[in-house]
Parts: sequence; C-alpha cells; structure tokens
Amino acid sequence: MPVEASNGEDRKTIIVFSGDLDRAMAAFIIATGAAAMGSKVTMFFTFWGLNILRKPSGEAVRKPLLDRLFGWMMPRGPAKLGLSKMNMGGLGARMMRYVMKQKKVASLEELMDTAKELGVKLVACTMSMDVMGLRPEELIDGLEFAGVATYLSEADRANVNLFI
Amino acid sequence: MPVEASNGEDRKTIIVFSGDLDRAMAAFIIATGAAAMGSKVTMFFTFWGLNILRKPSGEAVRKPLLDRLFGWMMPRGPAKLGLSKMNMGGLGARMMRYVMKQKKVASLEELMDTAKELGVKLVACTMSMDVMGLRPEELIDGLEFAGVATYLSEADRANVNLFI
Amino acid sequence: MPVEASNGEDRKTIIVFSGDLDRAMAAFIIATGAAAMGSKVTMFFTFWGLNILRKPSGEAVRKPLLDRLFGWMMPRGPAKLGLSKMNMGGLGARMMRYVMKQKKVASLEELMDTAKELGVKLVACTMSMDVMGLRPEELIDGLEFAGVATYLSEADRANVNLFI
Repeated sequence: MPVEASNGEDRKTIIVFSGDLDRAMAAFIIATGAAAMGSKVTMFFTFWGLNILRKPSGEAVRKPLLDRLFGWMMPRGPAKLGLSKMNMGGLGARMMRYVMKQKKVASLEELMDTAKELGVKLVACTMSMDVMGLRPEELIDGLEFAGVATYLSEADRANVNLFI
Repeated sequence: MPVEASNGEDRKTIIVFSGDLDRAMAAFIIATGAAAMGSKVTMFFTFWGLNILRKPSGEAVRKPLLDRLFGWMMPRGPAKLGLSKMNMGGLGARMMRYVMKQKKVASLEELMDTAKELGVKLVACTMSMDVMGLRPEELIDGLEFAGVATYLSEADRANVNLFI
Repeated sequence: MPVEASNGEDRKTIIVFSGDLDRAMAAFIIATGAAAMGSKVTMFFTFWGLNILRKPSGEAVRKPLLDRLFGWMMPRGPAKLGLSKMNMGGLGARMMRYVMKQKKVASLEELMDTAKELGVKLVACTMSMDVMGLRPEELIDGLEFAGVATYLSEADRANVNLFI
C-alpha cells in the first residue's frame, strides 16, 4: 500500500490506560513505528498504564497506608505485567514472552528503550499517580508529569489519537 | 508543554463501550476537560457503556422476558460499576471510590454532572439499547438517542475521536 | 443531528486488537456504517483480533509445536468468540447471539460479509501472526497482510482512527 501525504501535523498521541503486557506492547509498537517514520509521539500513561512505568525494585519510599494500598497489589514494571486474555495466573504472559524471544520479536523492555532513543515523550498522569499513591521516584527516569489539559492540547495538534 | 492552535474543528467524540468504573472515569475526565477548554464534546454510549447511564432504582418498566435478561445482570448506574482490573467482587471498586474521596478527586457521579453543565452531549446507542433490552425511561434524563450514522457524522467533523 | 462536511480525507482506520465478540461487533458496525456512507475503511487485526479471522475448521497445517501453543487455546473464528464481560464460560456470548437473532440484528458473520461487499479492507498484522503462530491459510480469504508501517501510513491519511 502506498504512503502518501498526511493531513494535519505529523504528530500522534496514545493514551495508555491499560497495564496489560499485550496492550502495552501494541502501544509501544505503534509509538516506536511512528517515531521511526518521523512523527512526534506522546504517550500518556494513566490508571493501570502507570504500572508499565514502575521501577522493578521497591524503593524504600515512606508513604501513608492509603497510598500503599494499590501499590502492593499492582505489578511493578514491564516484567511483571499479565496478559489481558489467557493470562492463567501469569503463565500466559510467560508463554508470550518466551514465544516472542524465540521469534526474535522485541520485548516490551526493548521497545521502551527504543521509544526513549527515538524521542517519544512519555508522560505520567499526575491525577492517576495521586489516586494510585505513586511517587515520581517510584517510576522510571525520563518521564514528564502532566494532566488532562496537557493531553488535550497535544491531541488537538495530532493527526492520530488512540486510547489503548 | 505549550498550548497551540488546533487543526480541524475543535470537536471531540468519545465512544464509551466499556461499563467499568475506571474506564468511565477516564472517559468523563477527558470529556469534561475538553469541554472546559472550549471543545464541543459528544459521548456515545454503547454496549456495556449504557450501564453508566442507567437509573439506580429499578423502575417498574413492563417488558418481555428476553428484554430483562441482560438488565438483571448488568449494573444499574455509576454507583454499581466495577473496575476493569482488581475488582475482587466489588472490593476494588469500593477501594478506588474511597481513595478518590480521600484525595478530593471528583467522583464519577460528579463528573457526569459537570459534563451536563458544560454541555457535553450524551448519546445512547439505540441499537445497543434494543439488544440489551433497555428502555429510554430506564436511563438518566437529558440524553439523546441515535445510531452509528450519527456517530460517524460527528466523528467526521471532530479532531479527536476515542474508543474507550 | 445534521451531517456536515468532513475535514481531511474521508478515510477511517480501526485497529481490532480485541478478540471479544462484543468488541468485534462494535468494530464491524462502525466499519460497515462508514463504508456504507462512502468512507474508505481499513481494519487492522492484531493480537487477539486475529482470532476473528480464523477459519472455523482446523486445516491440517503442519507447524512446529511452538506455533501451535496459542492456536490450541484461542477461538477459531467468529462463532467461537466470547464476550468481554459476563461471558460465563460462553453462556453470555450465546445469550447475546440469541438476543440479537430475535431482534433481527445482523450477526458478526453477516457484518463481516457486508464489510467485504462494501470494500472494507481487512489487514492481518504479520508480526502478530508470527507470534501467534498463525499461517495465512488458517485465516479467511480476501485479507491483506501488512505491518505497523502500513497501518501508520493509512492512519496518517484518515480522519478517524480507533483502537478497539
């Protein structure tokens, strides 16, 4: 299929609401693909999507009990994510990871590194962080922090906006 | 991040397919944010998303057995919605609601009121209502009723279209 | 609501990531509606969405064990899909199908036929096919095969892009 001129500015936004391995993969495949083709890409991580950005090791962040509630139960970073379907207590996610490795498909961790190298802007939703009790130091480096107004101003200038 | 000129008409559409509390929250946060910034916003509620619009009390609507099937099992309105993840039989949703209240984050009910005040257009999908056996009088006031053709004509004129 | 002029080219893309009956229905209702109104529509099937395109009968395709893993567990075609909510081991999906038939709502199979007749382009994601171990001969006829670059070039020219 031919590639033709785009309408509007060559800019994409993706809201990453889901914290499932498979949906996170889809989001980063689209984001890195678009960035590689020259688009400006911004990913907004909100609700469960913030789990993708968590550091694997639990930093000794002192916070009140209420803020620890979700943190205890939610996965810490890409290696801990489950599948949206057929997760089977984590077996499905491990199977998916194994198959992708055998097939030489980039892992989520590699896609995230590529996204950073290609200049994809990763934004953590501050309101969701507040609700989930997540502190900036619990998330990976290189993030921006913003809310819905920032998302909307970027989406207004983009020609592709997805909610994943 | 700076706010610049938008391309296309300043109009947004959101298809609310999901009836989960967390996804409904995300939809209304985006919708009210956009409306507050001056956008015309239309939300189309379809399939499980219709549950968000149900009145809490079961009105004595007489209808055939077939039309009661889904109605019996589906949640009646925002207070009864579960989470898409970690719902744990409703415990997760109650936890989420509790945390949001403590953090002074607007509840789904408040967001829905704000949406109405800001003139967000709420449209219930008539085909889904038919399949789910829902009557207009079982849904909250102030809705419009329409189908996919109306959605598409609005989406054609919008610069941001999301499916949640 | 009035139908007015569209901005940008009259072209739509839908990424069908989900393999749930209800979400597949929503995707095809939008796609066929748009095509009937004169839009060029491309649907990209990726991850679980590929299950919608599987032939019902298991063709005797010889492939290594690794490629059979997901194939064994995933539903074969539209008649085997479950609901994203209230599936209850397939009962919910059967109930939905029954209700739709009684209400004379087009089935997923009929919507898929209509999509083909209206010239909706159905594209299977080759990377997902590789990961899921699916061969072209296991999928229905009339598909195109492509990757994320093709999706992005189509999305760049479209005025509505959805992720379902």
